[in-house]
Amino acid sequence: MANRENLAARGQQKIEWIRRKMPVLQSISREWEAKKPLLGFTIGACLHISAKTANLARTLQDGGAQVVLCASNPLSTQEDVAAALNEIYGIKTFARRGEDRDSFYRNIHAVLEHRPQITIDDGADLVSTLHSQRPELLKNVLGGTEETTTGVIRLKAMAEDNALKYPIIAVNDAQTKHLFDNRYGTGQSALDGILRATNYLLAGSNFVVVGYGWCGRGIAARARGMGAKVTVVEVDPVRALEATMDGFMVCSLKEAAAKADFIVTATGNINVVDAKHLELLKDGAILCNAGHFNVEINLKALAEKSSSITTVKENIEEYKLHSGKKVFVIGEGRLVNLAAGEGHPAEVMDMSFANQALAVAWLIQEGKDLENRVYPVPEKLDKKIARLKLKSMGIQIDKMTAEQVKYLHSWQTGT
Amino acid sequence: MANRENLAARGQQKIEWIRRKMPVLQSISREWEAKKPLLGFTIGACLHISAKTANLARTLQDGGAQVVLCASNPLSTQEDVAAALNEIYGIKTFARRGEDRDSFYRNIHAVLEHRPQITIDDGADLVSTLHSQRPELLKNVLGGTEETTTGVIRLKAMAEDNALKYPIIAVNDAQTKHLFDNRYGTGQSALDGILRATNYLLAGSNFVVVGYGWCGRGIAARARGMGAKVTVVEVDPVRALEATMDGFMVCSLKEAAAKADFIVTATGNINVVDAKHLELLKDGAILCNAGHFNVEINLKALAEKSSSITTVKENIEEYKLHSGKKVFVIGEGRLVNLAAGEGHPAEVMDMSFANQALAVAWLIQEGKDLENRVYPVPEKLDKKIARLKLKSMGIQIDKMTAEQVKYLHSWQTGT
Amino acid sequence: MANRENLAARGQQKIEWIRRKMPVLQSISREWEAKKPLLGFTIGACLHISAKTANLARTLQDGGAQVVLCASNPLSTQEDVAAALNEIYGIKTFARRGEDRDSFYRNIHAVLEHRPQITIDDGADLVSTLHSQRPELLKNVLGGTEETTTGVIRLKAMAEDNALKYPIIAVNDAQTKHLFDNRYGTGQSALDGILRATNYLLAGSNFVVVGYGWCGRGIAARARGMGAKVTVVEVDPVRALEATMDGFMVCSLKEAAAKADFIVTATGNINVVDAKHLELLKDGAILCNAGHFNVEINLKALAEKSSSITTVKENIEEYKLHSGKKVFVIGEGRLVNLAAGEGHPAEVMDMSFANQALAVAWLIQEGKDLENRVYPVPEKLDKKIARLKLKSMGIQIDKMTAEQVKYLHSWQTGT
Amino acid sequence: MANRENLAARGQQKIEWIRRKMPVLQSISREWEAKKPLLGFTIGACLHISAKTANLARTLQDGGAQVVLCASNPLSTQEDVAAALNEIYGIKTFARRGEDRDSFYRNIHAVLEHRPQITIDDGADLVSTLHSQRPELLKNVLGGTEETTTGVIRLKAMAEDNALKYPIIAVNDAQTKHLFDNRYGTGQSALDGILRATNYLLAGSNFVVVGYGWCGRGIAARARGMGAKVTVVEVDPVRALEATMDGFMVCSLKEAAAKADFIVTATGNINVVDAKHLELLKDGAILCNAGHFNVEINLKALAEKSSSITTVKENIEEYKLHSGKKVFVIGEGRLVNLAAGEGHPAEVMDMSFANQALAVAWLIQEGKDLENRVYPVPEKLDKKIARLKLKSMGIQIDKMTAEQVKYLHSWQTGT
Repeated sequence: MANRENLAARGQQKIEWIRRKMPVLQSISREWEAKKPLLGFTIGACLHISAKTANLARTLQDGGAQVVLCASNPLSTQEDVAAALNEIYGIKTFARRGEDRDSFYRNIHAVLEHRPQITIDDGADLVSTLHSQRPELLKNVLGGTEETTTGVIRLKAMAEDNALKYPIIAVNDAQTKHLFDNRYGTGQSALDGILRATNYLLAGSNFVVVGYGWCGRGIAARARGMGAKVTVVEVDPVRALEATMDGFMVCSLKEAAAKADFIVTATGNINVVDAKHLELLKDGAILCNAGHFNVEINLKALAEKSSSITTVKENIEEYKLHSGKKVFVIGEGRLVNLAAGEGHPAEVMDMSFANQALAVAWLIQEGKDLENRVYPVPEKLDKKIARLKLKSMGIQIDKMTAEQVKYLHSWQTGT
Repeated sequence: MANRENLAARGQQKIEWIRRKMPVLQSISREWEAKKPLLGFTIGACLHISAKTANLARTLQDGGAQVVLCASNPLSTQEDVAAALNEIYGIKTFARRGEDRDSFYRNIHAVLEHRPQITIDDGADLVSTLHSQRPELLKNVLGGTEETTTGVIRLKAMAEDNALKYPIIAVNDAQTKHLFDNRYGTGQSALDGILRATNYLLAGSNFVVVGYGWCGRGIAARARGMGAKVTVVEVDPVRALEATMDGFMVCSLKEAAAKADFIVTATGNINVVDAKHLELLKDGAILCNAGHFNVEINLKALAEKSSSITTVKENIEEYKLHSGKKVFVIGEGRLVNLAAGEGHPAEVMDMSFANQALAVAWLIQEGKDLENRVYPVPEKLDKKIARLKLKSMGIQIDKMTAEQVKYLHSWQTGT
Repeated sequence: MANRENLAARGQQKIEWIRRKMPVLQSISREWEAKKPLLGFTIGACLHISAKTANLARTLQDGGAQVVLCASNPLSTQEDVAAALNEIYGIKTFARRGEDRDSFYRNIHAVLEHRPQITIDDGADLVSTLHSQRPELLKNVLGGTEETTTGVIRLKAMAEDNALKYPIIAVNDAQTKHLFDNRYGTGQSALDGILRATNYLLAGSNFVVVGYGWCGRGIAARARGMGAKVTVVEVDPVRALEATMDGFMVCSLKEAAAKADFIVTATGNINVVDAKHLELLKDGAILCNAGHFNVEINLKALAEKSSSITTVKENIEEYKLHSGKKVFVIGEGRLVNLAAGEGHPAEVMDMSFANQALAVAWLIQEGKDLENRVYPVPEKLDKKIARLKLKSMGIQIDKMTAEQVKYLHSWQTGT
Repeated sequence: MANRENLAARGQQKIEWIRRKMPVLQSISREWEAKKPLLGFTIGACLHISAKTANLARTLQDGGAQVVLCASNPLSTQEDVAAALNEIYGIKTFARRGEDRDSFYRNIHAVLEHRPQITIDDGADLVSTLHSQRPELLKNVLGGTEETTTGVIRLKAMAEDNALKYPIIAVNDAQTKHLFDNRYGTGQSALDGILRATNYLLAGSNFVVVGYGWCGRGIAARARGMGAKVTVVEVDPVRALEATMDGFMVCSLKEAAAKADFIVTATGNINVVDAKHLELLKDGAILCNAGHFNVEINLKALAEKSSSITTVKENIEEYKLHSGKKVFVIGEGRLVNLAAGEGHPAEVMDMSFANQALAVAWLIQEGKDLENRVYPVPEKLDKKIARLKLKSMGIQIDKMTAEQVKYLHSWQTGT
């Protein structure tokens, strides 16, 4: 009993600590506490059960909604946060860390039992269970939102097959989400994860970033900022050229591998570090992944080339190659910022989740005539979030004058 | 006579110097010298008559074309380059520096007299004269290309009115053009122009960049690279937030003006530095513009607030305000990299002009069925240019494996 | 029993992990294993009992010495490392984490019992106990080394009073120590500590570094590298000017405090963040210290101005000011990289400890005629370490030609 | 006549433009205009006759001195500045651009004719002529100052031989000189010179800096800031290691040469780029020097390996190697920031020359009891200059509290 209380108290502490750096959600809460724009609505959300998500749930609650939560991934559930949500914040949360598949789906069903009018998803599991197993509930639903690329792809496929029965807002594509979370969020947290796992010096090291998308750019910039000598590997020639002009060395992974102290993958593709690269690695090379799935490093090939695999430190496994060289893998090739760190900083999730909150309100207020397909976040919400964020940082920006608006408009229309 | 020869020789020297840093055009030339893909075609081009343009013309000539040139702007014509083109390279060039309006249009007509089958434009003056005054020649024309945003806007308006009588490739929108020329080209050359004009120390200075588009990003990054304390001013909240997270100070121009040692505008908008800012400037502030038109600094307002205007140094005018403070403007508010420097480095124009060359060849080979509207540069040309550029830099990049192509494809199609 | 074994095994794992990044010590070990230059000598060392120190001890042992260890600070002792040293590596280690004052001195005496001919100190406690309480053992001692500034100051004072009875090498002053550990070691590990404690986003934050010595420079550079907007506070005008020209904002702490998201002190001075600054802080400001002693933030003043002090997270205390604002202090103002992180990366200690090892060997081989005072590390040792380190990184550098040596020499002698 | 007037007017314009960025000299002038601390003294100065020097002379004049100038190098004399000094500012200036050796020494004698009580030198020519040819004037002289390393070395040699007959202040060694002019002055102006000469793109280029002293550090930092991929070459292992940890590639010049687009020498040594490197260079490599003397690139070896040498552009010579490769040298291997640029920015010379001015005043006020040797600039002058500079930039810094001074003092004295 005492333990249980402690658990909830600890969760509350976490939620409050994180809230300090979620000023956009805070300011939406303040705005909503009077107006209650979500009053009378039940929102079912299937998300990572973390302190950041808890703060989204609180803001939705502040807007008047009844919020019911389940976990989008059983491994990421923070038990203390779940306890706090249930026992302190009055937000029903069906999630247990490490629960099995049955329990996972039971919890999704438990959320659906509450007959949500809005769904929030991170991977489309809630939408998909609702459509396939509880179609009778679809008539209650006004719309939904989706956090990830993966989910958006699934939902667009459903829409194309006319299988999607209500409109979805693709939060992932908002500027205030995708322009920020990868570059600044992953950029910092991937390095943070690497440092927590290794405590090795980055200054002067040969640091290879595979992939120069938003994540790769963030990681490369931050690694350089820590004094590393950064090499970028890319398959797209335009991006490779950008990396070069940004001052990074660019070459093939085979060439880079021979000198690498660290290799971080961020490509979204499979077997990026593959059998052919493994023999080339230096003794002591550190491998890790900052892409979404743990497929970027070919661990199977690595295991086959190894005479032993040993955990030498929390989150670090040593592969002893037949050649005698040792290669180290952080967090089994899973997202290094989650496996060895604490994921995205709150400031970045603040903007992503503010998109969730505003998208939900927009669905309620202006979503009546939407078709059953996937929509982008309306630009005005996106800009509003950027403005709230700037304000929370004490930053004031200019507005265009009437003269300037006119000039630009005349220009864009070509008159 | 001797002088004339010297002029051409000097022009040749310039052209050859620049050619060294146009390896993509060089490699297209090498490829074309055997195949002559442009053989039998006459190309009329209305461009800045500079050493960079001369190298585009030579590559087109290497491809077998007859090339005829006139100037897109009478002020930018380099007399020695024109002489070399006419007398050494056998490329007819109708252009005189500082020519008047009549002469300018006579030269356009002189080009049209050669009945070009392809037009290359930088601002759409050639296309527009051809359509309005020599419509009988339109039947010869296979297609054209356009270098600038301005031209593209004019041509799209024509297409919308069904007034455009042949297809146009918008070279401006190619990735290997717009991702590079502003960030890296303007980034460097704007600072270069400022240093040539002032010889002032950037390290430790308060350097304000107005506008955080591609140009502004390039300038801000380079100014920081020179040790300046950089402040970014933006009206778009998302861009303002990016600037902040990129580590720049962000505030209103009023707030920034009071501390600024340098203010550089790069917004594409009018009166960005306006009457209301002028009184706030520090004594000794330097103003300049890196945007396309000389409208960004309100010089009229500045003149009205000044008791005297004096040229204190080549390219620098001192405005003595009624308050006694002195403010300095570089190059009368025209593009600082052209007014006080030498414009974009050749490496950047190499890619832009390689797009021109490949777009011309593509029009000839695959342009038969195009409609009379504005097309983007085909992606394969864009990638080819990036690949040639990387190769010229001795940089090798990886290719996706069949397995990776398949994985990515399966992913993108959502199966 | 099983636990005890596990403890030693875990210590060994740590020691081996760290050894990978101590290549200079490794190469000294390889060189010494054949020659045994320390054979027959007993070395008494009073150092932090960590995996890094363990590797110094192993190298001394590889050189033939008998090594006996005690702790220079009871709080920093790693029990598992001590167990491994005693049980696996055969290095007698007298240290217990959190031991009291009596036990601390008993352990120093236990080391002295072994009649060391060389002492290694980190704060001069071993030297000082030896001189004051066991003067009869002084005759055995050939010389000693000292790791820290603090110790060096104490020992120089002793030398001045003719109280020092054997020569000391001040390892702290070697170039390969002080030029590296503060800038690169503290630079990285202070940020690492802050991220582990807060998980807050540095990009776009207002980050204030107080002090622009070697530590401050390292921290400021790395914070900028993570995207923070960095302000430097200094009392020395020359350093303040350097910080400005390095592109940092520079102002008084009062001015900086009002905007700060993070304040890190690295001055070596007292009450740097003082009562007068506390009221000015923003709600939510994070305070921490990267200077040697926990005197830089005036915690007493902070407590007096607070209505409550709460631990809100591991290593973070919230001070609720009477004004209602909350201010957070990491690790009670102790060195943030030790309080919330793992201290200097191994690579940095590798160079410091290589200086220790080579200084010990040099004392034995060439120390016969030294006077009883404090000496710098001979330059040739310093350069040797730099060369070994470069070699371990696979970096080859040039040598001056005979012609160049002559030119430089003629120049320096003014002929 | 009209021409002559124009010449002086143009010189005045230059002097006034530069004065704007010499705020420390300005503030010394303001302080001195009332007090006239130099009244009655004649100062003979042998310096580069440039707008920056003119402003030093004006400040000395404002202090009450009679100032007489001659040139320290006939090639650097700016005729318009000399004319303005003579005709507008009433400062006698004996200097003609490109004057021959006889005229050069006649001008030194012309200065000596005025019986200076203080000498200011840049290379010790004035002191040396005075001692060797006009010893009868030595009795008038109170002391002198010296600007450069070269001069300081000569003067120290004289002092050692007891040949120096009055005290000299070595301005070169002041912190506010040597910590700033090389890193920030040469750092910027070397790049500026390269851009003016080549107009080539630095972003993405392979940029090699030979020497990682103050100059080399400045150049490397700025080249990186412009997007170049920077490699550092060093013979000192400690500096090589610093360069590595600062994130630069480090290798031998042979290895670096094969990839270099630009090589800049800044070593103070001879034949740094030597015969053995020339064959390794890439076709099109650009060579230049930022060290004091034009001995760093072995131009003789380069000429021997070349079939032709052609000036292809102002300040650029093409060496066509027998292998067919072409290599380009900027400004004949002389200091690139002077050969192709305008030398150090005024802001940097402001601090150097403020040291000159304050050293002169200090000699007059406190120099009575100095011995005939070379002295450093007193620390209080150095700090005063830093403080004045910060003030001119609007930057306020903190002062230590009494408590802090006491703490630091107790610490440093070891009590």
